[in-house]
Formats: sequence, C-alpha cells, structure tokens
Amino acid sequence: MEREFIEWLRSRLLPHNRLRLGPGDDAALVQLAQAADCVVTTDMLMDGVDFRLGEHDPRRIGRKALAVNLSDLAAMAARPVAVVVSLALPQAGGRKLAEELYDGLIPLAEEFDTAIAGGDTNSWNGPLVINITAIGETTPRGALLRSGANTGDAILVTGSFGGSILGKHFDFTPRVREALLLKERYEVHAGIDVSDGLSLDLFRLAEESRCGALLDPNSIPVSAAAVELARAQPAGISALDHALSDGEDFELILAVPPAEASRLLADQPLGVPVTKIGEFVPDRGLWRRKPDGSREPMVPRGYEHAF
Amino acid sequence: MEREFIEWLRSRLLPHNRLRLGPGDDAALVQLAQAADCVVTTDMLMDGVDFRLGEHDPRRIGRKALAVNLSDLAAMAARPVAVVVSLALPQAGGRKLAEELYDGLIPLAEEFDTAIAGGDTNSWNGPLVINITAIGETTPRGALLRSGANTGDAILVTGSFGGSILGKHFDFTPRVREALLLKERYEVHAGIDVSDGLSLDLFRLAEESRCGALLDPNSIPVSAAAVELARAQPAGISALDHALSDGEDFELILAVPPAEASRLLADQPLGVPVTKIGEFVPDRGLWRRKPDGSREPMVPRGYEHAF
Repeated sequence: MEREFIEWLRSRLLPHNRLRLGPGDDAALVQLAQAADCVVTTDMLMDGVDFRLGEHDPRRIGRKALAVNLSDLAAMAARPVAVVVSLALPQAGGRKLAEELYDGLIPLAEEFDTAIAGGDTNSWNGPLVINITAIGETTPRGALLRSGANTGDAILVTGSFGGSILGKHFDFTPRVREALLLKERYEVHAGIDVSDGLSLDLFRLAEESRCGALLDPNSIPVSAAAVELARAQPAGISALDHALSDGEDFELILAVPPAEASRLLADQPLGVPVTKIGEFVPDRGLWRRKPDGSREPMVPRGYEHAF
Repeated sequence: MEREFIEWLRSRLLPHNRLRLGPGDDAALVQLAQAADCVVTTDMLMDGVDFRLGEHDPRRIGRKALAVNLSDLAAMAARPVAVVVSLALPQAGGRKLAEELYDGLIPLAEEFDTAIAGGDTNSWNGPLVINITAIGETTPRGALLRSGANTGDAILVTGSFGGSILGKHFDFTPRVREALLLKERYEVHAGIDVSDGLSLDLFRLAEESRCGALLDPNSIPVSAAAVELARAQPAGISALDHALSDGEDFELILAVPPAEASRLLADQPLGVPVTKIGEFVPDRGLWRRKPDGSREPMVPRGYEHAF
C-alpha cells in the first residue's frame, strides 16, 4: 500500500484491543480468545457483478463488501475480530475512490467491533474489485455448521425475504448479534446465511446435513420489497417466488429442535422476527407442503455461481 | 463457490491437522497454537500488472499468488497455517483456469504445510484477479517487525538481488523456513521481505525503526539475472542498480546486532547465503558508503504503488 494512503488510513482507525499490529508492516497481528478457533471467510466483489460503480455510492459498495463477510461469520455464530481489505482500483480517481470505500466500511467495522488489520491497495487498467477476508473467533458454545440439522428440526428464519435488489442487498444488517444471541441461549443445530436465495441456500444446508427440507409456503415471510417487485411486473414472478429465489437477503436459516423452536418462537428474543417456515425431513431434497397436507418436490432456485 | 468445483477442490486437498472445517461451509475453522497470535496478510494479483495470462502458465500464476503471501509471513517470522483464495475468472475457460491456478498453488501449500481453508470463486466479464489471504501464527520467539532495528545493527540479507523479471518473480522460494530458523537461533531485531526493491524496502524498514541505513555497495549480492539484464542493455542501468531497485526478489532484509551477526555470518546456517550489506545508523534516510569511507545520501528506488 502506498505510504501516504496507509498514513491516511491509520489516522481514520480507532485503536482496537485485539489488534497488536495494524496496517503498515508485512502482516497484521491479531489476538484471538484463548481456546477459540480462528473462523475465516473471504468474499470478492466486482464492478458489474455485485455493484455498478457509476450508479452506486462507493460508501455503500465498501459497506457491502464488509457486510457480506460479517454475514458469513454470523452464519457460523462466530464473533468478528478483524478484516483485511484488498482493492484493485481503476486508474482514474483511485485514491478518492479508496477513501470513499473505506468511509463506507469503517463505520460498519466499528459497529461490529471489528479491527481493520491491513490490506493491499492496488491500481490497474480494469474495473474495481474489492476482496475482504474476515477473521472471527468461535465462542465457548462452538461454531454453527451447515451439517448439523436433524430430521424433525424446525426450519427457522430471521427477517423477511425477496426483493433485496431494491436496496437491502447494500444496506442489510449482518445478523451477527442475532446469531450469537441465539447460539448462546438456545440449542441451534445448524445455520446458513441466505446469500444466493432462500430455497437454494436451504437446500444446501439440508444437503450438508444429509436430510431434506419441507417448506410450508404460506408461512414464508415475504418482504415488502418482494411485493413491490411483483406488483411492478404483474406478468412476472410472484412475491412468494421472489422470496424463495432472490439472492442477497443475508438473513439466517437455522435448524432448531422442535421444543426449543417453540420456546424461541414464543420468546421472540431478537429485534427482528423469527419465523418457522417448515421442518427438516428424512427424504433428501427440497419439498413443499400442499394445501391438502401432502407434499411435492420443489426446485431450489437462486443465484448459481457458474464458471 | 459452485458446488461441483468445491467437490473437485475437496478431492485435491490433503487433510490438514489444523483445519477443523475446510471449503464448503460459510467459513472455515482453523486451529492456531495455544497463546500464538494470528498473523494475517493479504495480496491481490491482477492480470496485466503482476502477470500476463496469455504469456504465463496459470500454474506459475497460482503458485506466485500463494508465494507472495508466504513471503509476507516469512517477513514476520510467522509459521503459515492456512489460506483462503478468491478468484475473479474471465468467463471463457474459467473452470479450467481455476483448476490450473489451484494445480500451481496446491504443491506449494503442501510444501509449507499450509491448509487451503476455503475461498470465493467468481466469474466476470473482466481480467483474472486472484486474492489470497494467508493466516499464520507467531512462534514462542514472537513476531519479527519492521520497527525493531537499532542503530549499530548489521543489515543482513538472504540470497541475491535483481533481475527477478527473468523468472524468479514467479519461481522464488518464500523464505519461511529461513526466517523461522534465524528467529529461533539468533537475536534478530527487525525484518522485511523485498517485494518492491532492495533499496526501497530497506528504507521502509529503517523508517519504521526511526533510524537510517548505510549501504556498502560493494557487498551487495548481485544476482546472475541482474548481470544478464544489464548485459542485454549496455546503455541501460547497471547490474548493481538492478539489484538495488528491481522488485519481487522476495529475499529477507534483517537487522541483527553486530556480535550476533558475526556469529550468524560465520555459521551460514541456511541453504542460501546470508550477506552483510551495511548497518543501521542514527541519521534517518538511506546512505551509501563511498570508497574513501565517507558517505553520501542515496535515493531509495523500487516499485511504488501509486493510485
């Protein structure tokens, strides 16, 4: 990183009690809790794919690049500790853009008590690319994996789904606090964050747990944005289908044993609603409950990273 | 990451005793040594800047993306533990390219006992970008910083310098083993790896240590590649100037107290030569010893990341 830019960055960062050595050396030194595992996730965002630089405020882009990583830590019920930030900046206006990206991500890092430990800032003859790697730590309650769901567990979700393209895909709150609170107070068997679509990510969780998922379509919390999208295109897909297949909701899907789920649903311990949308079943795949109580297979839909 | 690609990747990876959870979940779980700090570094490589996809074997590109990160851990005298790999792949031939990149980096990861913990694999309408974040751990001897050099310390370097563009910038061996051995057996005050140029990176180390660096030009180990480059362009810069200013040597510069340096130089404990090229002095800046024993200021030269 250019010396002068590192100085600017250092001047913008608050001290952090876990950061033994921050930006400017060959690597950063981060202290993790005794006996905790290091939880690590990385996400690359590219102009034209995850945002459009000409249309979107760079502060929102920078915030999103951090938020998607925090959402992955939330899905593990891990506590965020530090991040490193890599940028490939377009040659024109790169320095200003870099500052705006950091201006967007620094407040979110502070909100989640996450140190900005370092990075790699580059310029090139190409579109903006941001890569953030987040480092978290497990709590004494352990990590939340995709593979722990049992047949009979309730499928619970935070928040509502669909239509994130109208704004939530930038401005969502990663469910870090929610995941930590739920893992602390309840028995939670498995979890995933919805980055590619509710039905697709639920299917992935079920597959990793070697079971199936049976959805009750009427119980799915459909967001106002999904309704708005469906209304705007009456010949298009329904609000429910938006909820099932739109990406970037960044809500949590959790597998919780039935009695514990009843307690959790009665408590409603979060600022955001928790809803039961179905249950895990022995038969692999994704299923939908029909009005007559029988079930039919469903195709998981969402954003597939093809390459 | 695309499901099928994750399966391919999982099939290529050996188990690793520090990796509690590898690719495929929302994040990876990595176990660090008790009481060790987490050492984290990240590097982004871009087509047209750090390599040219049309000219260079993708295996060498993948290897380099990992090696530059391991070199940063070496500069901290940290032991590598795990990496995460993000790719932005061009749309045509992306899957094959991804496999070739991994085919290049996996053997180096195995050589340095480093787990491939996960990643983010994307495709876009742009040139290849690779970002790797490496996680290491400090040893009981602690981390090696840039800021620890004292006036009077000898300036020691591993290997030789200049002309890496002829091949070494791809095929260098990160000095991880060397750094760990030296930190274990000797008192080493400060260190940096030479990524941007010997004189520039030495200047940076001296600045972080709030002292100056006095070079003895005759003692600088000039590589055969630097000599070859200078010969090919008789009107260009000298082999010594290549050694002083070419980037990507990925050798170590170390600050070692004088008596300890004498012992180390006599021992020559590494497979690669260690050479004394000068000493740290009270006056800030970079200096060159003249034949008459006096000194003159020198301009640090190398690759500056402007943006």
